[in-house]
Amino acid sequence: MKISVIGAGFVGATTAQRIWEKNLGDVFLHDIIEGMPQGKALDMMESAPLLRVESKIVGTNLFEDCANSDIYVITSGLARQPGMSREDLLNRNAEIASGVAENIARFSKNPIVIVVSNPVDVLTYLVALKTKLPKNRVMGMAGVLDSARFRYFIASELGIAPQEVQAMVLGGHGDEMVPLPRFSTVSGVSIEHFLSNEKIEQLIKRTRDGGAEIVQLLKKGSAYYAPSAAILEMVESIVKDQKRLLPCSAWCEGQYGITGQYVGVPVVLGKNGIEKILELPLREDELLALQQSARHVASNIKKLNLS
Amino acid sequence: MKISVIGAGFVGATTAQRIWEKNLGDVFLHDIIEGMPQGKALDMMESAPLLRVESKIVGTNLFEDCANSDIYVITSGLARQPGMSREDLLNRNAEIASGVAENIARFSKNPIVIVVSNPVDVLTYLVALKTKLPKNRVMGMAGVLDSARFRYFIASELGIAPQEVQAMVLGGHGDEMVPLPRFSTVSGVSIEHFLSNEKIEQLIKRTRDGGAEIVQLLKKGSAYYAPSAAILEMVESIVKDQKRLLPCSAWCEGQYGITGQYVGVPVVLGKNGIEKILELPLREDELLALQQSARHVASNIKKLNLS
Amino acid sequence: MKISVIGAGFVGATTAQRIWEKNLGDVFLHDIIEGMPQGKALDMMESAPLLRVESKIVGTNLFEDCANSDIYVITSGLARQPGMSREDLLNRNAEIASGVAENIARFSKNPIVIVVSNPVDVLTYLVALKTKLPKNRVMGMAGVLDSARFRYFIASELGIAPQEVQAMVLGGHGDEMVPLPRFSTVSGVSIEHFLSNEKIEQLIKRTRDGGAEIVQLLKKGSAYYAPSAAILEMVESIVKDQKRLLPCSAWCEGQYGITGQYVGVPVVLGKNGIEKILELPLREDELLALQQSARHVASNIKKLNLS
Amino acid sequence: MKISVIGAGFVGATTAQRIWEKNLGDVFLHDIIEGMPQGKALDMMESAPLLRVESKIVGTNLFEDCANSDIYVITSGLARQPGMSREDLLNRNAEIASGVAENIARFSKNPIVIVVSNPVDVLTYLVALKTKLPKNRVMGMAGVLDSARFRYFIASELGIAPQEVQAMVLGGHGDEMVPLPRFSTVSGVSIEHFLSNEKIEQLIKRTRDGGAEIVQLLKKGSAYYAPSAAILEMVESIVKDQKRLLPCSAWCEGQYGITGQYVGVPVVLGKNGIEKILELPLREDELLALQQSARHVASNIKKLNLS
Repeated sequence: MKISVIGAGFVGATTAQRIWEKNLGDVFLHDIIEGMPQGKALDMMESAPLLRVESKIVGTNLFEDCANSDIYVITSGLARQPGMSREDLLNRNAEIASGVAENIARFSKNPIVIVVSNPVDVLTYLVALKTKLPKNRVMGMAGVLDSARFRYFIASELGIAPQEVQAMVLGGHGDEMVPLPRFSTVSGVSIEHFLSNEKIEQLIKRTRDGGAEIVQLLKKGSAYYAPSAAILEMVESIVKDQKRLLPCSAWCEGQYGITGQYVGVPVVLGKNGIEKILELPLREDELLALQQSARHVASNIKKLNLS
Repeated sequence: MKISVIGAGFVGATTAQRIWEKNLGDVFLHDIIEGMPQGKALDMMESAPLLRVESKIVGTNLFEDCANSDIYVITSGLARQPGMSREDLLNRNAEIASGVAENIARFSKNPIVIVVSNPVDVLTYLVALKTKLPKNRVMGMAGVLDSARFRYFIASELGIAPQEVQAMVLGGHGDEMVPLPRFSTVSGVSIEHFLSNEKIEQLIKRTRDGGAEIVQLLKKGSAYYAPSAAILEMVESIVKDQKRLLPCSAWCEGQYGITGQYVGVPVVLGKNGIEKILELPLREDELLALQQSARHVASNIKKLNLS
Repeated sequence: MKISVIGAGFVGATTAQRIWEKNLGDVFLHDIIEGMPQGKALDMMESAPLLRVESKIVGTNLFEDCANSDIYVITSGLARQPGMSREDLLNRNAEIASGVAENIARFSKNPIVIVVSNPVDVLTYLVALKTKLPKNRVMGMAGVLDSARFRYFIASELGIAPQEVQAMVLGGHGDEMVPLPRFSTVSGVSIEHFLSNEKIEQLIKRTRDGGAEIVQLLKKGSAYYAPSAAILEMVESIVKDQKRLLPCSAWCEGQYGITGQYVGVPVVLGKNGIEKILELPLREDELLALQQSARHVASNIKKLNLS
Repeated sequence: MKISVIGAGFVGATTAQRIWEKNLGDVFLHDIIEGMPQGKALDMMESAPLLRVESKIVGTNLFEDCANSDIYVITSGLARQPGMSREDLLNRNAEIASGVAENIARFSKNPIVIVVSNPVDVLTYLVALKTKLPKNRVMGMAGVLDSARFRYFIASELGIAPQEVQAMVLGGHGDEMVPLPRFSTVSGVSIEHFLSNEKIEQLIKRTRDGGAEIVQLLKKGSAYYAPSAAILEMVESIVKDQKRLLPCSAWCEGQYGITGQYVGVPVVLGKNGIEKILELPLREDELLALQQSARHVASNIKKLNLS
């Protein structure tokens, strides 16, 4: 198994670390900055005797080294700079993602691609378009992270183990997310049974602002520990063909009344990528929220300079 | 079990991550920079539902929060800045380590302290002095990292699994290290049986320059993946009372002809800290190299402004 | 942490193996058969260098060696022999469990006790009575096993990963179990959404007969791999204070309208044993089934020769 | 990865359990006793939701179900019965191993075969002959178990962690083993530095009688926890291509002056089976002991009724 992580910033490097330390395959860590991915990879390799890892990890500036990977994780992209408009950022990151997508198309056949760079739903659409890969082999990471945060906040509130809480967050990433408290459960029982509506609304708000809360604390930089753990969950489900049910940005063709669009929905992830989209029995208000979130993503796609 | 990591830079934060993800205890991550340790800790906590970690990790700027830890890991300190002399750096980091040591003495009784900041052998001496802790409860991390690098280089050369190679690197950290190829083995057989003297010398040189090689690649920053894995190995051996044999900077009282000094020697690490120093049957040239390395550390200690 | 497993048959020995291999503490494996627990423990210890286990495991015929354990797991008891009535078996196993309980009371103070021997709900009552321990520190293992089987059957039917399925099985063990498909979920969605009523009924029936199915295949002996994994889940939640939500045979005082009785209900398991009983919002038919199951257990307790 | 374990007795079933629980591949557990392998496999599958295993394990009486396995582990065979001569046993187990070998040859191409049944060196020879597989793809398990026992005894004596001790035991299994204390090390230092000759001789004797010690304690049955852990070590090194250095019964062609024979020597185990035999720099007395052990195996092969 060959797994390439494109972009060796904090999210990319920590993702590579997690995949490699779990021995899921040989990892290639790519960045355009010279020396940096090589330095990080060498530093990791030197921990192999201690951590008992047998896979290898290679840092590189050459996309050729990532050729014929089974899985690509795209983390490259800019953070918003002072004086930069939201559209400037969108177009700049779209340009970067396009370049990566073209390299993937050129150097490999039929890989699975996980897009992490933001705005994730838009860039996933773009990468699917440029790589011309089957839609089930291209997906975006957002819901696993959003629901991990929601799960942690619920567990803290209830004083139980975080792994005991299941949660479902659909829709676009960030402001557009659609948390579903009704399908967020502790031991099969909806959290609506344990928490007041006010409390649930507070936790949802904190989840929605989860990324911003970290940025505000760190002052420079943004979250990477939880995002990389979320990516690991997806990569592991694919590599080990676990067929786990995870919310991912997936290509919808009619599901939930959404067509021709990438948006966060629950999917079965296995060795063939997205093997199935699960259609939850949503109430009308939940469905409308999801469709509105999808429309918002669609309006952003229209802003792209697709050439 | 309460474990505090002082300094939330890359080495400190990655150490905290490793200790916490292995569920070795509740981790407190301290730094003087406001918000930063809190942000990193929150980001980690949000990965708990995915990684199935039950311990907690707390970021803080208050040393009081770290009170009564069972183990302290000191990673705080500066890297050498342009225009800064080696002695300036020594005195600046000694000042920082002193402050931490005083806090440890004030807020806890009889913890175990692992010093990681550089120059490690000198600062370990200083921390033992300032905390007034029993000498077996204060130690420095260097040999585990140096020998991990040596093991990785040997394994790469031989094409076998890194965990199959045992290696022994004693003496002071960095230029002063004393690698012992005779006690560096593959399946119990000295590497001298498998590799030419020239090749071994090359690998030793690369090990000696191991930290610098990473710095040169990264350009900004230095190694943290392998150092944090080395610290983990020490912490785990103490927490689980594994009684592992690891090279650490330990207080010698006559062993190897060295007295009243911290220097890298093989020790048994358990719940009481350094439970025993192992005296290897060194040849005269090996012994002399170790003693010279110890003298070099001693000369640096003399340069400290101890008040 | 000291954990004693009483009874070194297949369930007991495999339980000891799992607890020890997970490094949860030092394990004492007790049996009245001479040599047998010692032989099994020595065989396990000889695997320690390969499995990298640091805890110790000790086999013994002396209850004194198990003195002052933090946790006791009682697995000793007979299987039904030809010509033996159900009541004979009940009284014979009650006698054995009584003896163990008296030893626990004599040799330790305030441990946590997990009863596994059958009929589990009855014997848990008996052990609580004889040890005079607080009721939250004595519990029976049944629901974790029953729901593991239900989860596996559901996952097989749906073609997804077993760990993705949550299921809830309450009530007495065996014929008396009360599976709750409404609270058995995949990603928060009730399995009633995915499976027909007939199919669910089939899976429930297979779960109810789960133990018998294995007995029929093995011809001699009964299940021990899944039972020991279920015990491990409970022990781990206690040792690591995970506060997991697991269905256990717990002392009810009014919950679900049941009073003064041990029966399978969802509980929070932590370092203090059963820290809370969770009251699910049951429908009337579900509640009646649970209460009937409880009455059945009560009628068996009446058959005990309590002296 | 498909791995078949032939023989579902204690060694076989525990081996299957270990391989499956480590998710190394899908496991097929074969036995001629009806129902038994199916029962054990079903019992294990029912623990999957708790242990979070995603691989499958299948019990079967049909060799066809094991067709095209990547790895076969042969554990089937009889224990010596009262009144049975040593040669009767040899010929009876040779017959069983022959049957398995023929099935392997018929139902798969180019698998790797690990022989565990005793007398292991003789039966490995026989299986290599009957399967006509390349000699590097057929090997026997003995030295990993023998040296694990030796390592445990040394570690106990020294009061250190078992995983810290490396040991080398070569030659035939059982009475014929050739332990090499000189290459048995703690942190690279020969145990001859830590233990007296008398003590080492005691530990060697206990290692040589390691199997018998367990039999004597258990009264019925023999060791299976450490043997299955030793098999796991070999299977894992092959599946993950770890290239670990392990003592195995391997086909020698001149190494150590032994030709045309299977005997325990240190080998590199990887995805191609035995990738290399390591020639240790033995002293003359060590070499003679190894060669004598080899001659003893050869004389047993001659007793086989090869037809």
